[in-house]
Amino acid sequence: MILVINCGSSSIRFGVYNMDADRLLKGKIDHIGSEESSMRVEGAYAFEGRVRLGNAGEAAGYIVLYLEQAGLLSAIRAVGHRIVHGRNRKQAVLIYDAVRAELEGNRLLAPVHMLAALTIIDSMRRLLPGKLHVACFDTAFHTDLPEVARMMPLPRHLIQKGIVRYGFHGLSCTYLLRAFEERAGEKAASGRLIIAHLGSGASMTAVKGMKSVDTTMGFTPEGGLMMGTRPGDMDPGILTYLTRAEGLGLAELEQLIQAECGLLGVSATTADMGRLLKAGRQDTRAKQAVDLFCYRAQKALCGLCGALGGLDAVIFSGGIGENFPQIRAQICKGLGFLGISLDETGNMENAFRISRPSASTQVYVIPTDEERIIAEQTLNVIANAN
Amino acid sequence: MILVINCGSSSIRFGVYNMDADRLLKGKIDHIGSEESSMRVEGAYAFEGRVRLGNAGEAAGYIVLYLEQAGLLSAIRAVGHRIVHGRNRKQAVLIYDAVRAELEGNRLLAPVHMLAALTIIDSMRRLLPGKLHVACFDTAFHTDLPEVARMMPLPRHLIQKGIVRYGFHGLSCTYLLRAFEERAGEKAASGRLIIAHLGSGASMTAVKGMKSVDTTMGFTPEGGLMMGTRPGDMDPGILTYLTRAEGLGLAELEQLIQAECGLLGVSATTADMGRLLKAGRQDTRAKQAVDLFCYRAQKALCGLCGALGGLDAVIFSGGIGENFPQIRAQICKGLGFLGISLDETGNMENAFRISRPSASTQVYVIPTDEERIIAEQTLNVIANAN
Repeated sequence: MILVINCGSSSIRFGVYNMDADRLLKGKIDHIGSEESSMRVEGAYAFEGRVRLGNAGEAAGYIVLYLEQAGLLSAIRAVGHRIVHGRNRKQAVLIYDAVRAELEGNRLLAPVHMLAALTIIDSMRRLLPGKLHVACFDTAFHTDLPEVARMMPLPRHLIQKGIVRYGFHGLSCTYLLRAFEERAGEKAASGRLIIAHLGSGASMTAVKGMKSVDTTMGFTPEGGLMMGTRPGDMDPGILTYLTRAEGLGLAELEQLIQAECGLLGVSATTADMGRLLKAGRQDTRAKQAVDLFCYRAQKALCGLCGALGGLDAVIFSGGIGENFPQIRAQICKGLGFLGISLDETGNMENAFRISRPSASTQVYVIPTDEERIIAEQTLNVIANAN
Repeated sequence: MILVINCGSSSIRFGVYNMDADRLLKGKIDHIGSEESSMRVEGAYAFEGRVRLGNAGEAAGYIVLYLEQAGLLSAIRAVGHRIVHGRNRKQAVLIYDAVRAELEGNRLLAPVHMLAALTIIDSMRRLLPGKLHVACFDTAFHTDLPEVARMMPLPRHLIQKGIVRYGFHGLSCTYLLRAFEERAGEKAASGRLIIAHLGSGASMTAVKGMKSVDTTMGFTPEGGLMMGTRPGDMDPGILTYLTRAEGLGLAELEQLIQAECGLLGVSATTADMGRLLKAGRQDTRAKQAVDLFCYRAQKALCGLCGALGGLDAVIFSGGIGENFPQIRAQICKGLGFLGISLDETGNMENAFRISRPSASTQVYVIPTDEERIIAEQTLNVIANAN
């Protein structure tokens, strides 16, 4: 069996898979670092618990204890981790000491995500020294980006130092592209696609011939689209202005772009799309946050059509993309010039295809499953490690 | 007569206009701050001179001396200045002391441009105390941007402090929109337009019903498109990374985003598009700079089509947009899905219309004339001041 760990900034999704990559159970720990962390496991080994977990390391201990009590631990051969930043690594890799050191060097490229992931990796390697540990990279899907998409207009010496577009959400894109191919066929999947992974982190990726040709996120996960608490790409003069005119220090700027912008910043209340949509009827600021999110996503979608030379299909996914018809409708509104025309009923029902059959560009909703891809990549790595 | 001053970071364009806003002469001072500044005047009072001018103030003195020797100075009633940043000012205004103080408050929002403009304004007001001085704002054209275009995904308290999209190149847009209307008719000018002002500073503005509905530049002129030495919008995580990992200080970051990125940064040789295009055959880095400029401009153009809900016409202007067919062709390449199809001959000749007559989206080249708009706005202000 394989244990899969998908570690976010304050939550961890995990799952246990058999050697065919079929899932036996899935679990989630929420609100790590708060007074009221909770763990919930679905499936044959269902479990629900409330406990105070201060950090990802303590959460690792809690998961291991649960697996032991459920009688699953001894059967687990490997632990697969989602690693947000892998720079130019094209494939998943066993985490031996040199790889762990390499990952340390990526810490500043995705500070929030890497801190949590490295904490849990270190804990798991200590707690489970007899298992294999595997790193699966969110950047790997984008390592063959065309040069114009990969390069950013920076001084040459910074480009040479590796300050380029890496792109993220690659595990999700890998899953969605395959799921799309399975349901819509190889011809459709080989077309000009935009994968809109919209969650608390959000990105759009342009895919052509099954390959990533451009993506909105950049060197760090702070770039690209407006997100839950991150601004996405912005006028760089704003950051230097805030330093010079408002006296913000480095730690304050980091906090700003990681945790205080986006839906939360504009609404001044929450980054939770469900709450914003409910509040929007009375709360102008909540409505502005939602409108801005959709408007900027729409512009990014249109922009990526330039990279693709047109558009055949859009795939919505992620917590927001899968669950909020109103957001999908608002992003797609007025895009008749791209051949987009939503079917209102299908959209309201979160159906697979949500565009009218006659539309020249089809629009789909596919729930993503990053953990499944981590399980497969982990199985692949340990098969080759033997 | 009216003296018009259009002050860039290292050059000044100026002109003398009669009370009907017809131009009597135009001049340019280049390479201010270097060992070999030069002044060149065309028209009835032609002049060419080489002299060392250390800053915009000394250049102001040189212009005044020239006008006196040409016998024009006494006839000049007012001096109109281009001011890059006017925040929410909708119209040109007489520069009395309170306005001068207000402009000081905009200095940090466009540091390079405002320093030069305020230096020359102060010099002109001292040298010509008997004349009226008028500020004409590059931001004014965009003051009625829709809320979704104006707002950026920042914390509410920063939005309330006025950290929003102001947009620039408004004097150029004003001229181009009118020139387009005169040549193509009111119906065409009322459609969905993108004005691509591509020079050492570059921006695209979406215009609908003769009004700016979105524009690529933001709070400062560093945002939006890739430019000669500025990066345009970027992943904000890069700036915090450069501070934390590379130890860059504030002054270095400012220098980076104002002067070291864009075409210059990528090519590592020059921001001059003509030189890059010539070098591009042998020089990979020059070619990469050009390709990146065009690719990012193309994505921005497509993105603005989202704001417009489609596209009827594109207008190229500015030093690059007016003079380099290859750049226009590269930006328009593959945009058949937007109805764009260039006429190769017309494009090579920098013709007015450069798209095929049958194309559903027409593409034009119009040389811009910001000084003409400054002259008109200045005349208007002094007429009302009497």
